[in-house]
Amino acid sequence: MKNLIRLILSLLVIEFVFSQSLAAQKDFGFKPAASNIQGSDFPKISVDKSVYVRLRAPEAIKVQVQGGDGFCPKPLDLVRDTAGNWNAIVPSVGPGFHYYWFTVDGVRVNDPGSDTYHGYGRPTGGIEIPIADEDFFTAKNVPHGDVREHWYYSDITGKWRRAFVYTPPEYDKNAKKKYPVLYLLHGAGENERGWSKQGHMSFILDNLIAEKRAVPMIVVMDNGYATAKDAPAASAGFSMRDMTKMAETLEQVYVKEIIPNIDLSYRTIPKREGRAMAGLSMGGMQTMLIGMSHLELFSYYGFFSGAIMGGIMDDPKTAFSGAFADAESFNKKVKLMWFGAGSGEAQFVKMVDDSKKKLEVLGIKPITYISQGTFHEWHTWRRHLNEFAPLLFK
Amino acid sequence: MKNLIRLILSLLVIEFVFSQSLAAQKDFGFKPAASNIQGSDFPKISVDKSVYVRLRAPEAIKVQVQGGDGFCPKPLDLVRDTAGNWNAIVPSVGPGFHYYWFTVDGVRVNDPGSDTYHGYGRPTGGIEIPIADEDFFTAKNVPHGDVREHWYYSDITGKWRRAFVYTPPEYDKNAKKKYPVLYLLHGAGENERGWSKQGHMSFILDNLIAEKRAVPMIVVMDNGYATAKDAPAASAGFSMRDMTKMAETLEQVYVKEIIPNIDLSYRTIPKREGRAMAGLSMGGMQTMLIGMSHLELFSYYGFFSGAIMGGIMDDPKTAFSGAFADAESFNKKVKLMWFGAGSGEAQFVKMVDDSKKKLEVLGIKPITYISQGTFHEWHTWRRHLNEFAPLLFK
Repeated sequence: MKNLIRLILSLLVIEFVFSQSLAAQKDFGFKPAASNIQGSDFPKISVDKSVYVRLRAPEAIKVQVQGGDGFCPKPLDLVRDTAGNWNAIVPSVGPGFHYYWFTVDGVRVNDPGSDTYHGYGRPTGGIEIPIADEDFFTAKNVPHGDVREHWYYSDITGKWRRAFVYTPPEYDKNAKKKYPVLYLLHGAGENERGWSKQGHMSFILDNLIAEKRAVPMIVVMDNGYATAKDAPAASAGFSMRDMTKMAETLEQVYVKEIIPNIDLSYRTIPKREGRAMAGLSMGGMQTMLIGMSHLELFSYYGFFSGAIMGGIMDDPKTAFSGAFADAESFNKKVKLMWFGAGSGEAQFVKMVDDSKKKLEVLGIKPITYISQGTFHEWHTWRRHLNEFAPLLFK
Repeated sequence: MKNLIRLILSLLVIEFVFSQSLAAQKDFGFKPAASNIQGSDFPKISVDKSVYVRLRAPEAIKVQVQGGDGFCPKPLDLVRDTAGNWNAIVPSVGPGFHYYWFTVDGVRVNDPGSDTYHGYGRPTGGIEIPIADEDFFTAKNVPHGDVREHWYYSDITGKWRRAFVYTPPEYDKNAKKKYPVLYLLHGAGENERGWSKQGHMSFILDNLIAEKRAVPMIVVMDNGYATAKDAPAASAGFSMRDMTKMAETLEQVYVKEIIPNIDLSYRTIPKREGRAMAGLSMGGMQTMLIGMSHLELFSYYGFFSGAIMGGIMDDPKTAFSGAFADAESFNKKVKLMWFGAGSGEAQFVKMVDDSKKKLEVLGIKPITYISQGTFHEWHTWRRHLNEFAPLLFK
């Protein structure tokens, strides 16, 4: 009965006219987002980075909008106009890439006006909020590498797994040359498509290689979820315990399956000096857990807004069977420890500072970088890749 | 006010208990579909190919399900249970791959339990209904080719375009060998990902090549939509007029941009004898329009449930500036005219028969194939590719 009353009230309330306020919005120069699907007018972004969202839903009772870090973290009500469209202005959205969704009468719906991406463990809408430095990840008139969908059978998980493999523009022209490999990991709830789709990694690398700022390299982007074939199925994998358990299986998959398969399938430099590992958020934690346990495999490490648990770095001297304890030996093997975060994600900035201090005390000198004005989202990580890749394999 | 009455009636009606009927459903052996996202119990498929769909939507007033050819063509109401889940059994779904979606209080929503695919011009849910012959498109322990995401700038459309390019398993090992190329086109509302995702084309080719039934070949899958940079934006492209107009631009893109770029980027056999063109539905029509106008470019043609307009084949003798008129000359250039359809899509079967008869009268001998028990959907086209590819480049 309560529901009924709520419904009746809603029906009476929703008739006020949203369109009157729209004329005023013209002054703010709302324009369709670059991430809209072709021909879609909504969502629109204003010069002051407000987002005007609209959903056609004449029969709905309640519509809300909500998004990821930097985009409307609490649900915001949309208002129905007389034409049956629901409208809202999401105020002051942070720059960069943001997942977002509508809730229509309690059901989560992706905006049909936006492209979808694999986020939160499911296809999720996303929007690009303009930022000054978009040039470095934009497709330009330079040679382009391919991103290859590469399948291989994993005996550990009992499944066919898919990696995306970037081969640099010159790869097919130099049939004898061998290339170093960067293993690049995505975040929680995302998948192996994240770096090439949300991250535009191929254009970042194409541009860096064309400018001779980075050496030509292969980049391998595999899935960050792995469950041993006889283990019970994992949940969506957001808990630290799930992540740690999964990292153990993933470690085996990397060491026994992914790396050997890549070295067999592509012209790689199959030794420590020819391998780097980096990841964002959950992938940063996996880079720490897997990478620090295998200094024989990698020489360069990147932690992009890395979800590095306090536990690991509490006593770095004893962590990873003492990998950090002998700085001289560590520094001989490891050419780069790179930590980054976005200035808008305070806890990750703190982790960067904390890691730097603790490693410096031991005699290990990390490089750190804070992306100004960005959040826990892909523009932060695009900048990280753009800063990190030029330091590799030189 | 009518809406209000409808809402009140709905609220009174929805309390009958769906769960009582579920015990009976056990006998039908409902099991989660192979296309479900990991860990999702719904949708479920019974031994008699009914599909049990469920959506959690405690606050919704009306939920319906509908799908593509062979799957619930008219909206079917779901029924709310006391737990807030909406349920329905979709009866007698055809085998193969089907797009489907929910409508929640008038808004189209993809099933969060299923993966999504680019269909109907937007991300759309899909389900695989089991069929006896799945083996040929399944990943097996054979060498696997890569499917490469390949970007190039198109001056005609003023945009960066993306092709997916399958390179056969041996491609990277034989640095000198040149390969023939099949240009493979998707259907209306789909995109360049369709053949490798919904179609599993890489596994079909991997298996055929491993069995030595098909020669190793490159397969290029580009986007079937192209709008000249100064032309007004096209609609979603389902009208014949839109398609014809687009085919004219697409013809220019193929002749001046796609084919030269592929011949430059990959080790191809860059002549008629080394090229085939095939497409499904709208892509079949494009293969006819572009291919028959360029007998100097291709030797092998496939029309998979091809949307071949009556107009073209009405008088084949005069069509395409008389390409078919001189059968002797045509047969010297063209090694294969292949037409296929699914037995469940009567109008396309008719087009196959009609094309065959009309060409035979002229002295051109097409090969035809009807996929038994399948509809206007991807399993029909997987079978078409599996039958067509072995006939190429021999």
